[in-house]
Amino acid sequence: MKSTEAACQYELMAARDALEVIQGKWRIPIVISLTYGTKRFGEIHRDMPDISPKMLSQELKSLEENQIITRTLYDRMPVTVEYSLTPLGQSLQNLLVELRNWGKHFRKEIVGK
Amino acid sequence: MKSTEAACQYELMAARDALEVIQGKWRIPIVISLTYGTKRFGEIHRDMPDISPKMLSQELKSLEENQIITRTLYDRMPVTVEYSLTPLGQSLQNLLVELRNWGKHFRKEIVGK
Repeated sequence: MKSTEAACQYELMAARDALEVIQGKWRIPIVISLTYGTKRFGEIHRDMPDISPKMLSQELKSLEENQIITRTLYDRMPVTVEYSLTPLGQSLQNLLVELRNWGKHFRKEIVGK
Repeated sequence: MKSTEAACQYELMAARDALEVIQGKWRIPIVISLTYGTKRFGEIHRDMPDISPKMLSQELKSLEENQIITRTLYDRMPVTVEYSLTPLGQSLQNLLVELRNWGKHFRKEIVGK
């Protein structure tokens, strides 16, 4: 295998590892929402009203399984549940900045706004 | 709307614009493959053998519609088709670097390799 092919395969593997965790329409937006601090289910949902509660629960569970977020239950009346980023989740910050920058660039280039 | 909420909404909009274009399991890997130069269908497919030809065609078409790649047809015997990144596609470079870096970090943290 030529060195460029090896380099390409290495980059593809790392990128696909990342994509496995953050793929889909909602996981990155949920992480972005939590970069603004610990939030409850309803607060996250308000940030992306077009997601169904069922899908939001599913994606929160997957992010928790991948150790990107933590879920804390407070045994009070009523019981409350809060979500926050783990250090691993916070380490997505640089990627989120580039994603936002590229989104702005794309909108300007394509939509002209 | 509080300023942090406004900032959060702004960031979510930009990120969702970007995700609309690069979402899914294959579009980023296709772009990574093409950062190594202009390629034919078969060469891209060799970089990700687990994608079906039908899915690869579909994702190439979507990337072309979003002006991330160009498709050039050479009317020779046999006819050949080549794909390459547009300047807009090349502008994904910073995002790809951060995605690869995070993928390596995630693998080390979670898989320990």
